[in-house]
Amino acid sequence: MYKYSHGGNAAFENGKGEIIDLSANINPLGMPKGVREAIIRGIPDCEYYPDNFSGKLREKTAAFENVNPDWIFCGNGASDIIFRLPGALQAKKVLVVSPTFLDYERSAVSNGAIVVRSILSSDNGFAVNKTLIEDVKREKPELVFLCNPNNPTGFLTERELIAELLECCLSIKSCVLVDECFLDFAENADDYTSKVFLERYPNLIVLKAFTKLFALPGIRLGYAICADMEVLQRLYFHGADWPVSNLSQLAGIAALDDARDFLKKTAEYVSRERSIIEKELTLLGYKVFESRANFVFLQNPYPFDPASELDRKGFRIRSCENFPALDRSYYRIAVSKPEINIRLLHAIEAITKSREKRQ
Amino acid sequence: MYKYSHGGNAAFENGKGEIIDLSANINPLGMPKGVREAIIRGIPDCEYYPDNFSGKLREKTAAFENVNPDWIFCGNGASDIIFRLPGALQAKKVLVVSPTFLDYERSAVSNGAIVVRSILSSDNGFAVNKTLIEDVKREKPELVFLCNPNNPTGFLTERELIAELLECCLSIKSCVLVDECFLDFAENADDYTSKVFLERYPNLIVLKAFTKLFALPGIRLGYAICADMEVLQRLYFHGADWPVSNLSQLAGIAALDDARDFLKKTAEYVSRERSIIEKELTLLGYKVFESRANFVFLQNPYPFDPASELDRKGFRIRSCENFPALDRSYYRIAVSKPEINIRLLHAIEAITKSREKRQ
Repeated sequence: MYKYSHGGNAAFENGKGEIIDLSANINPLGMPKGVREAIIRGIPDCEYYPDNFSGKLREKTAAFENVNPDWIFCGNGASDIIFRLPGALQAKKVLVVSPTFLDYERSAVSNGAIVVRSILSSDNGFAVNKTLIEDVKREKPELVFLCNPNNPTGFLTERELIAELLECCLSIKSCVLVDECFLDFAENADDYTSKVFLERYPNLIVLKAFTKLFALPGIRLGYAICADMEVLQRLYFHGADWPVSNLSQLAGIAALDDARDFLKKTAEYVSRERSIIEKELTLLGYKVFESRANFVFLQNPYPFDPASELDRKGFRIRSCENFPALDRSYYRIAVSKPEINIRLLHAIEAITKSREKRQ
Repeated sequence: MYKYSHGGNAAFENGKGEIIDLSANINPLGMPKGVREAIIRGIPDCEYYPDNFSGKLREKTAAFENVNPDWIFCGNGASDIIFRLPGALQAKKVLVVSPTFLDYERSAVSNGAIVVRSILSSDNGFAVNKTLIEDVKREKPELVFLCNPNNPTGFLTERELIAELLECCLSIKSCVLVDECFLDFAENADDYTSKVFLERYPNLIVLKAFTKLFALPGIRLGYAICADMEVLQRLYFHGADWPVSNLSQLAGIAALDDARDFLKKTAEYVSRERSIIEKELTLLGYKVFESRANFVFLQNPYPFDPASELDRKGFRIRSCENFPALDRSYYRIAVSKPEINIRLLHAIEAITKSREKRQ
């Protein structure tokens, strides 16, 4: 019944450094300076229970996000929050766009809810559009998950549509979780974040994580922002106490030092590198979709599987075969450092051209 | 609706070292050597996702517990497992003894289950006895939580009774979680552990944690042992992936080096210190119950609240007022180092005698 369904496991499957793992989307700039020292300083704290409410971390996060610290709930990764929410809201029906991050569905099912999918079309690049609103009006779910930019497509939804979704959901007493875990990789993220709607829409939960942006998947740290105090209380109630370890709280606090600079540098870096990869893959005949995240999303027109061939050349990319609404022709590739991206592109070029010759 | 209900929060409420926190029950020997170095070495790993299945940690834990590594599920503290289980088993009715650890009830309620309490009596020292079996037979819960030794009473249940409980539950298709988080503090723990029943009873889940025994509440690491593979799969399904951070996996592995020695030393140390505290408190007129854990459980016969007076003297003890079936006359005090225990006893003596004089 349970099957691990994500990328990012090359390090413990193959051994660290044995394979370059582009199947999870981690900031190529690596973890911020200061995290290492904060963890070392915090080791004696392991003998104490963590602050259940992550008080200092919430203060620092609130300053970074420019929101009220009381609006924040910190969890054991964004995943922890995804799994608490349907129970917290007592949702009987949950709507997701499809394709999207798989755990929204598992969370709904494991909390006893029915899942309804609003199918995105490859014809318009898996764009989220008004069909979503129509599906919500018809299905009346108690909870909608929207990933922005979407995973694995990288598609960035305009704020106008999200405002309409929030208004529609408010009228039917539904909540919307907007997962912005990849948003800070987009340039002009401030023009796209749903945070501006928090005060007006208490039915909005914005989800963020330290995982991708700060290259800290190993510490498990995510947070929800919501202006409805009852929702936040319910997140505490519907899950274990002490969700965030002492070391993770301290790592998070340290990661937020100079975070605005780190973020700007990251977005420019990722945007530049993503363009290079996308251009080259297009030239090689792959169908590349418009991504605004730190990964490239593509469809393979050839009759061979580049992922298995890349594996033999030391690169792990993410087959999207297990995403409903996708199939084995779709792949997601994380944007990495220039030297790795170039080696990857050379490898893909070699695979593609040798196959073309043989055919 | 949500209220933090545990001890152990003096460090972040009052500041570390400001008050001696005996409201949580952490091994006075402190964290094992080797944990510090393991965490430091593991910091670069924070840039990788953790092994979702905690493979190496399960191997080491299995060797320590002398069980099959495939029988182990590692979670974000024992609490994480407590909160996954009722959903994983789709339990509609959960039975707990009362008083006991509060989170069993919250977990049941947050998973939509009804809670039935099997009330323990102060007349026989809150002993768990055949009444529990009768209550289970009558109520037919899908899940029974039994803490052994019990928290906050410290009462240790004999294995014969647990065998009878397991047999009874097997016949009505119920599961039993035996929480042994405090068992390794008891001398002759091997004569009391329910692990011997795992192979025979697939409806048994034994719960353990690094929190108390290895003085690592800050890293959040607990584990379930169960011979039923489907229950383990369900624990993965009914909660977020990557429950245990990289640093916590590494800290756990390091903590288990020389764990058998550490455990023996701990049990002797705690038993000796607990006896000293219990004897002295009895002489001072407090009613002390028989505890086999690393805490003392007592009832205050006097009309004043020793906890608030101790707070002013720099000691935090745990009022048991918020435990159903108890009231404000009950307290739990962690066994600490000799020098702290002596200072605590002097403080209690001073408080008690000055009050006696005034009355």
